[in-house]
Amino acid sequence: MSEKILIIGGVAAGPKTACRLKRLNPEAQITIIDQDSLISYGGCGIPYYVSGDVSDEKELRSTSFHAVRDEQFFEDAKGVSVFTRTRAQSIDRKNKTVKTLNLDTNTEEDLPYDKLVIATGCQPNKIPIPGADLAGVFMISDLHQAVAIKEQLAKGQVGKAVVIGGGPIGIEMAESFADLWGIETTIIELMPQILPRAVDKVYASMLSHHLEKNGVAVKISEMVKTIEQSGSSYTVTTDQQSYEADIIIMAVGVRPRSDLAKNAGLLVSPMGGIVVNERLQTTDPDIYSAGDCIETTNLVSGTKGQSPFGSLANRQGRVVADNLAGIPSIFPGVVNSFIMKAFDVCIGCTGYSLDSALAEGYDADQVITAQSDRAHFFPAQTVIPLQMVFDKRTRQVLGFQGFGPMSDAVLARLDAAAALIGKGATVEDFINLEMAYAPPFATALDALNATANVAENSLAGRLRTVDFDNFLTWMDNPSTQPEWQALDIRHPNESQLFKDQFGDQWLPIPYVEIRKRAKEIPTNKTMVIICDAGTRSYEIQCFLDSIGNPNSLVLGGGFNIIRRISVDWWPTK
Amino acid sequence: MSEKILIIGGVAAGPKTACRLKRLNPEAQITIIDQDSLISYGGCGIPYYVSGDVSDEKELRSTSFHAVRDEQFFEDAKGVSVFTRTRAQSIDRKNKTVKTLNLDTNTEEDLPYDKLVIATGCQPNKIPIPGADLAGVFMISDLHQAVAIKEQLAKGQVGKAVVIGGGPIGIEMAESFADLWGIETTIIELMPQILPRAVDKVYASMLSHHLEKNGVAVKISEMVKTIEQSGSSYTVTTDQQSYEADIIIMAVGVRPRSDLAKNAGLLVSPMGGIVVNERLQTTDPDIYSAGDCIETTNLVSGTKGQSPFGSLANRQGRVVADNLAGIPSIFPGVVNSFIMKAFDVCIGCTGYSLDSALAEGYDADQVITAQSDRAHFFPAQTVIPLQMVFDKRTRQVLGFQGFGPMSDAVLARLDAAAALIGKGATVEDFINLEMAYAPPFATALDALNATANVAENSLAGRLRTVDFDNFLTWMDNPSTQPEWQALDIRHPNESQLFKDQFGDQWLPIPYVEIRKRAKEIPTNKTMVIICDAGTRSYEIQCFLDSIGNPNSLVLGGGFNIIRRISVDWWPTK
Repeated sequence: MSEKILIIGGVAAGPKTACRLKRLNPEAQITIIDQDSLISYGGCGIPYYVSGDVSDEKELRSTSFHAVRDEQFFEDAKGVSVFTRTRAQSIDRKNKTVKTLNLDTNTEEDLPYDKLVIATGCQPNKIPIPGADLAGVFMISDLHQAVAIKEQLAKGQVGKAVVIGGGPIGIEMAESFADLWGIETTIIELMPQILPRAVDKVYASMLSHHLEKNGVAVKISEMVKTIEQSGSSYTVTTDQQSYEADIIIMAVGVRPRSDLAKNAGLLVSPMGGIVVNERLQTTDPDIYSAGDCIETTNLVSGTKGQSPFGSLANRQGRVVADNLAGIPSIFPGVVNSFIMKAFDVCIGCTGYSLDSALAEGYDADQVITAQSDRAHFFPAQTVIPLQMVFDKRTRQVLGFQGFGPMSDAVLARLDAAAALIGKGATVEDFINLEMAYAPPFATALDALNATANVAENSLAGRLRTVDFDNFLTWMDNPSTQPEWQALDIRHPNESQLFKDQFGDQWLPIPYVEIRKRAKEIPTNKTMVIICDAGTRSYEIQCFLDSIGNPNSLVLGGGFNIIRRISVDWWPTK
Repeated sequence: MSEKILIIGGVAAGPKTACRLKRLNPEAQITIIDQDSLISYGGCGIPYYVSGDVSDEKELRSTSFHAVRDEQFFEDAKGVSVFTRTRAQSIDRKNKTVKTLNLDTNTEEDLPYDKLVIATGCQPNKIPIPGADLAGVFMISDLHQAVAIKEQLAKGQVGKAVVIGGGPIGIEMAESFADLWGIETTIIELMPQILPRAVDKVYASMLSHHLEKNGVAVKISEMVKTIEQSGSSYTVTTDQQSYEADIIIMAVGVRPRSDLAKNAGLLVSPMGGIVVNERLQTTDPDIYSAGDCIETTNLVSGTKGQSPFGSLANRQGRVVADNLAGIPSIFPGVVNSFIMKAFDVCIGCTGYSLDSALAEGYDADQVITAQSDRAHFFPAQTVIPLQMVFDKRTRQVLGFQGFGPMSDAVLARLDAAAALIGKGATVEDFINLEMAYAPPFATALDALNATANVAENSLAGRLRTVDFDNFLTWMDNPSTQPEWQALDIRHPNESQLFKDQFGDQWLPIPYVEIRKRAKEIPTNKTMVIICDAGTRSYEIQCFLDSIGNPNSLVLGGGFNIIRRISVDWWPTK
């Protein structure tokens, strides 16, 4: 039973494997090596350390009972040996040893193992452009970088920042710069939206608008070409313009750190993930792997990919420990649940966005709703736009997105959705899902159920919606689209401003008067029915269909969505 | 297609059926009748109306766009006829008519139907005791009662209130009395805990303690015997004592309103629920039923029961409408998700409590955890005690309970749990459930996953816990239990007070020193290992097992649970 277990990597999956295994098999001799001096930290907390929410980097590597997780802690509390500043250079699978280099003493050593665990994580991508290596360009790769960034900020000499990359880390860093330090911050993203692939464009637009409202400039579809230094400041030049900056963050994604595995002859995917089976064994049965460095299986599609999330690393570490202890646990796969805070809002998704589902080959469609998170008479209620992505043929729910205020309202719907999506659930499963209800927490028909109902209406062909991009194009220049007309069914207080602005292209008839005034609605035009949430519009669409006026389209989510994105044509008094 | 659809009941399931059906089949002639003058209201909002959070009862029967849902609204906006103050007296199934009585004109009429929907809801139970019908005794049966209660309060003559029944409605009413009106309020519950059957005793105790802290007296195991009036005030006498009150709420559960169905020869369960199939058809295929009046199927056990929740009534109404329109929808069953606010906390559950699971015949067990709702370094983090109930043989998760602050943190875990429980999920499914993670929303290993991990440790026999009742009994009189000793592994700052109070029965050894000081731990006693959450205690239990000291027990959830209930023995400086 006194097996030698060697673990390469001491941040998340590695320590989790070690500690769990020591509990399961107290006689195991467990050693963790890591090339860094700091281990077992919560890397996802770095933006909160930089912002100042977390005052000391030690808090990011402390337990909930305030013990710092350093080598001594692992030795005393866990019975696990840790060697930091120790780099694994190569694996000799035949003799079952790992050649290590002590980065302080420069001495090499061959560490023997019975079972090996590779938990080498990921490394940030660097764009190969001139200036990428300049001193003012930081990557969010480890705690040392975070400390260096914060020291720079604390000197008070940072007035402007550029963040290259509109992914989660870039956005969180931009918030910490702008919110806590008052730095003029610009995000530059290569793709035509921030959070590309993760969420669809409407969701990215809602987030962009909120960032802009809070002073963060968001530039999309711009490619950074060069970074130049001039004294203590820098110029970031894109294919379109130049930006001054005192500090630059490069956060353009990560890739698995798998060279060690590859050089040892283990199978590594084309994308660089270490290939493992469900028990997280590599192609060498004596070597396991877990964390950001492995290839994962998508539970929705079966597709292989990478899922660099600290939460998954912890789950995977537990599975490795189980298998090393003889418990046949499996890690079945991922749905890629994601949530983030940005100033006063949160945004999250699970499964596939519409874009990524279509790219995956699904016959996919989506609906968007704008329902309240709790009873409309409850003081704190607010609208949380939810989107459901589904397969039109199988009715399988492929993904789910949410946007809302900084509370756990979106989280609740997201986690419930993830639970079902991971089980291959259909739209009907979501309709029947029993969400807990009381007025302070939800509406009688929860927003998640309501979204599934809307998806069912869409699948049945009863609900026909206008594509957001089409609608926005039309509204940017309505007079060029004579075949379309808006049917605004909101209260006259709300619709009159639009009628004043858009004249004959805007037909305001309040919802409760539609049945009486149906003859006023043209039958030779595509009526775009507009309300605040889309719900009433759908009712009116059903009614128009029933009276032989079948050409209407509904603006899904209604003006609650439009208000959350930036448009030029919004009327003002 | 122009079928006559008659719907009896206009609160939740009835209107939902009507509106959905009118959209699916615009030619249907749909009529709702209700004996009340007020319809389509959110009954769950009554406590918030009484408290003053909701200023006008109209808000409880308004749409999110502030239209009052009265007869005119249904006619104009929905194309549905509504007759209020119209009681259904009997059903003539042969001739397909319903005999109605207009309560204003006292005229009878036979209304014909092609399809009938019974949505008669439930009625509150009344304890058959002297005084139950006195003017000062209110039931929360409809909006009129709510208005009458609020009028009484507004007169300013209510100083003391007694609430008979410690279920959700009683507790919510007690909060509204005490919190907003400053009324001295007492809850009297017959069973040995509040929220009986729904949650287990530890959870009821946490809630009771919070109610008491906020000025609501909670009396359990007391049977109300009489209510007597003296002038404008009342005396409520139990089998143990008497209470003065200016107003009395009787909230002792509800029962299905199914006499109409029963008298028409439809099958009604022994508990009074109208028996329906998955398509919500009664034993007469032309008669459907939905809402609080029907019998439901528990998705965990298959057992039949009642589930009087407004949220389910809405779902069921949709299913009835679908089937009436020829869409073969089903309502598979319930998991009985439940959540409520009480002052600054929320409490919720889904599936079975341990007590009810054991009563159902399961070989059930439970674990309780005290994990943070978000990253421990994130400012707003707090502990949310979670409990998982599972079957020891099949590993199926039978139920889940949560307690926490007034946020959606518990809701998020509850809804995700309900999604899985409804699918017959096992502990392993919960371990692998991918909860969304970012430090402002969760811990890297979410509290729900952590609870499942603890359940797995318990199932494997590695985690052995002390029963809470046993522990509390011991602590009430520790010197009588020489075979037990506490091993307090918290920081000396925390453990010293207890050592001072309990002397030799309290052995404080900090967590990180256990491995070095293991010889100080007696082997001839049952060591009860105590920390704040139970996590460290479990580690120490594994370690003690490994050194041949296998008699320890862990206090699951640790002092985070104890602090949330009221105990006499807590040391004070």
